[in-house]
Amino acid sequence: MYKVDLNCDMGESYGLYEMGNDEEMMRYITSANIACGYHAGDPHTIRKTVMLAKEHGVQIGAHPGFPDLIGFGRRHMTATASEIRDYVLYQLGALREFAKLYDADIQHCKPHGALFMMAMEDEGIAKAILEGLAKVDPEIIVYALNNSAAVEAGRKMGIRVAKEVYSDREHTDTGSIVITRKGSTITDYDQMAERVVRMVKDGKVETHLNETADVKAETVCIHGDTPGAPKLAKAIRDALERNDVEITDVRNII
Amino acid sequence: MYKVDLNCDMGESYGLYEMGNDEEMMRYITSANIACGYHAGDPHTIRKTVMLAKEHGVQIGAHPGFPDLIGFGRRHMTATASEIRDYVLYQLGALREFAKLYDADIQHCKPHGALFMMAMEDEGIAKAILEGLAKVDPEIIVYALNNSAAVEAGRKMGIRVAKEVYSDREHTDTGSIVITRKGSTITDYDQMAERVVRMVKDGKVETHLNETADVKAETVCIHGDTPGAPKLAKAIRDALERNDVEITDVRNII
Amino acid sequence: MYKVDLNCDMGESYGLYEMGNDEEMMRYITSANIACGYHAGDPHTIRKTVMLAKEHGVQIGAHPGFPDLIGFGRRHMTATASEIRDYVLYQLGALREFAKLYDADIQHCKPHGALFMMAMEDEGIAKAILEGLAKVDPEIIVYALNNSAAVEAGRKMGIRVAKEVYSDREHTDTGSIVITRKGSTITDYDQMAERVVRMVKDGKVETHLNETADVKAETVCIHGDTPGAPKLAKAIRDALERNDVEITDVRNII
Amino acid sequence: MYKVDLNCDMGESYGLYEMGNDEEMMRYITSANIACGYHAGDPHTIRKTVMLAKEHGVQIGAHPGFPDLIGFGRRHMTATASEIRDYVLYQLGALREFAKLYDADIQHCKPHGALFMMAMEDEGIAKAILEGLAKVDPEIIVYALNNSAAVEAGRKMGIRVAKEVYSDREHTDTGSIVITRKGSTITDYDQMAERVVRMVKDGKVETHLNETADVKAETVCIHGDTPGAPKLAKAIRDALERNDVEITDVRNII
Repeated sequence: MYKVDLNCDMGESYGLYEMGNDEEMMRYITSANIACGYHAGDPHTIRKTVMLAKEHGVQIGAHPGFPDLIGFGRRHMTATASEIRDYVLYQLGALREFAKLYDADIQHCKPHGALFMMAMEDEGIAKAILEGLAKVDPEIIVYALNNSAAVEAGRKMGIRVAKEVYSDREHTDTGSIVITRKGSTITDYDQMAERVVRMVKDGKVETHLNETADVKAETVCIHGDTPGAPKLAKAIRDALERNDVEITDVRNII
Repeated sequence: MYKVDLNCDMGESYGLYEMGNDEEMMRYITSANIACGYHAGDPHTIRKTVMLAKEHGVQIGAHPGFPDLIGFGRRHMTATASEIRDYVLYQLGALREFAKLYDADIQHCKPHGALFMMAMEDEGIAKAILEGLAKVDPEIIVYALNNSAAVEAGRKMGIRVAKEVYSDREHTDTGSIVITRKGSTITDYDQMAERVVRMVKDGKVETHLNETADVKAETVCIHGDTPGAPKLAKAIRDALERNDVEITDVRNII
Repeated sequence: MYKVDLNCDMGESYGLYEMGNDEEMMRYITSANIACGYHAGDPHTIRKTVMLAKEHGVQIGAHPGFPDLIGFGRRHMTATASEIRDYVLYQLGALREFAKLYDADIQHCKPHGALFMMAMEDEGIAKAILEGLAKVDPEIIVYALNNSAAVEAGRKMGIRVAKEVYSDREHTDTGSIVITRKGSTITDYDQMAERVVRMVKDGKVETHLNETADVKAETVCIHGDTPGAPKLAKAIRDALERNDVEITDVRNII
Repeated sequence: MYKVDLNCDMGESYGLYEMGNDEEMMRYITSANIACGYHAGDPHTIRKTVMLAKEHGVQIGAHPGFPDLIGFGRRHMTATASEIRDYVLYQLGALREFAKLYDADIQHCKPHGALFMMAMEDEGIAKAILEGLAKVDPEIIVYALNNSAAVEAGRKMGIRVAKEVYSDREHTDTGSIVITRKGSTITDYDQMAERVVRMVKDGKVETHLNETADVKAETVCIHGDTPGAPKLAKAIRDALERNDVEITDVRNII
């Protein structure tokens, strides 16, 4: 039987500033990537988001980013691999303490924005992050794009990496995604949901150049700030269930 | 036999900015209070300081402060007890992850600056911090001023609190300390060392008003930015040893 | 004939985070208090807000706050008068450069949140700010609560201070306002508009204790994050116009 | 007769953190590049540095950088040309207000670190910055590397750009400089001073590859954190004077 994890970036509010639809999205997903205070999130938001995930039985993951609140962590910085590993550990630890506060544990780590893309593309950065993570938490699962440097680093180092696809972004011919500042312009939820089903069951996706690429979809990202995200999430759940795909935590999959 | 722990604030550099004499001070102390990135410290500095403490067999503690880098965490902020607890947990967790990276654990937590003083004076804040700490780490020891709200909260809640005195600050008649922006103007190391011995063995200190106050000295703070701090630290060690006081981690004392 | 200025806090978005209804509110007000990057606002938001004010013929003012983005500048900090003056000048200057970019000038300065309240209550802080402002811009007008330390400092120093009342906050018996973290719970726009008219024309307001206080209403604040703020602003404009009160820039009033 | 301006980065302390030798360096230079609060500097440091420059008759310039305090503005960020222009204006304005406070004006702008290098290499960024500067201050002079995009943009746009060489960095064959994280390892002050004289009078410099490049030296940078910087500055002054080169503000040169 097919299985898949549904993940969403969460806890990206900051002080009085609100972002995302965390309460609604929690109803549909199995894994929450919680911002940790660098690109978004603050200690109070982290605590509330952990509590919310716990209430919904959603697994908790770290979503660390660059220290660039103005740019929401979407701007590449020429930080060294060692600096980036330290940023990841700092934020992961901060989140973990709040997980402990609510008797929860950390399932996974999915870097955010520019830090994520750098970890996908740069082998040295991928290795530094994975080595750090493996040392502090051998059970942790890293989310990564198909065919990325992080997948390769995880394979070599014996660290579990979950292959991720996107419900609301275009994919390239290698299974990576196309990043734009404008985000998703999604409108047809059912069509997107069918695309997810195809990625999960057939391992295929139509690329941004209208070709077909092979992907492995162990976890599917749904962005909470995509317009109508909860509707998209519901459409995806419904389509997966209709197609006998089990929606479950990523730790039950890989 | 008398025992005492010697502690020092550490890891207060930030990026290219250097502060303190961490390498030298590590030779003299038993417990390091490591800044966690809010009032001082950054992920790279934290990692290096944890590594340094480990190398010297010095116990690691969190030194969380207010998010006020310009003011070095010395300015009171009207944050709520809940906000302050979240700041403490966030920073503690960040530090703990680096401790794990080097197979070390966290012995204690000593809040910094204005956050420390607020936790000493305000029962609601003291309770919020201690409840949070007890939940995430029942073994953690909290450093607190004699007769403070934190000592009282710890007593009521069954949480271990180490009573702290200062080698380089004036004490009040309640065993609290006199805070000034200018820090210490210490010059006579031997005299200060004798004062420490008297606090440890006799439980007495001459106050800033030239009276005598009762104190319990389970841990003694030596500020690394006090002029000649390593010399002061050495003088204190020598005086304690001459007087048959064992210098040991606070977890061996309370 | 009666005259009054209508002001609103603006430019309080930050990076991707949006706050307020700036585009709509600009249609109703005469003076914009633009956040300057400390409690809210970033350089890009400042630029866009200045441009927007210019397009609408709305006067530009600085809205400087404490460096406390997590707390939105609403938390008191024990900063010195000199530190606070420096914060005000730093932010004012940053804003002024963007005003120059669009051939606009700065009409006024209204400190934000905790910094505002401290300037209203503490004579030393009020004086430090006003001295700084007078030196860098002798034409600038400072917004202040009735009977505040800033009004008194301005009177002594020969600096123009505009007396401000609030459309969406409760007033005390001295003409100050009642600050709560929850903001306004306003629902009856017409009633609030009538209250504004009465403050402007009769110089009277019913206090939070249901007594009557004397106020001078040279400028009226409407918070952009009050629910239905544009409707409230429209109701106020309509009521003022019906009552033959001219709505004009504060520099035409004092 | 030959003329040259001597510049130095200043005001790079932050809160309690001290950097550089501002008081000593002010005695030797003609132009101070003052950090503006993003990569370094805070409002209090800015104010003191402006006051210090004024006392020494040193011209004031802005030294804006990226919002990256941990990395001291040395890390490239993929910010857009528009974002970078906004960062420059924000910081320039903040500094200008403090200049006004002491009846001084702004002579020049020299971007810092990664922002500087991006403005030197990327024509779009150079143009955006220069257009912004020209609009807010037509008299301002921009410091730029020989043969850089900023020199070219200034030439096309009719904006004054001062060609800068470095006393304590290696030059490339185009007159640019070699950036390293470790800074200068200078030891022979007299030799470096002679190199400066040759750049000013002969327009020649030996490159890092031991070839000879043509440079125009209208202003010479001496980094305040170069070991022995005041000694280097004194050696440079002495050598220039011995060689009949007038040391004067850049506004007297171009």
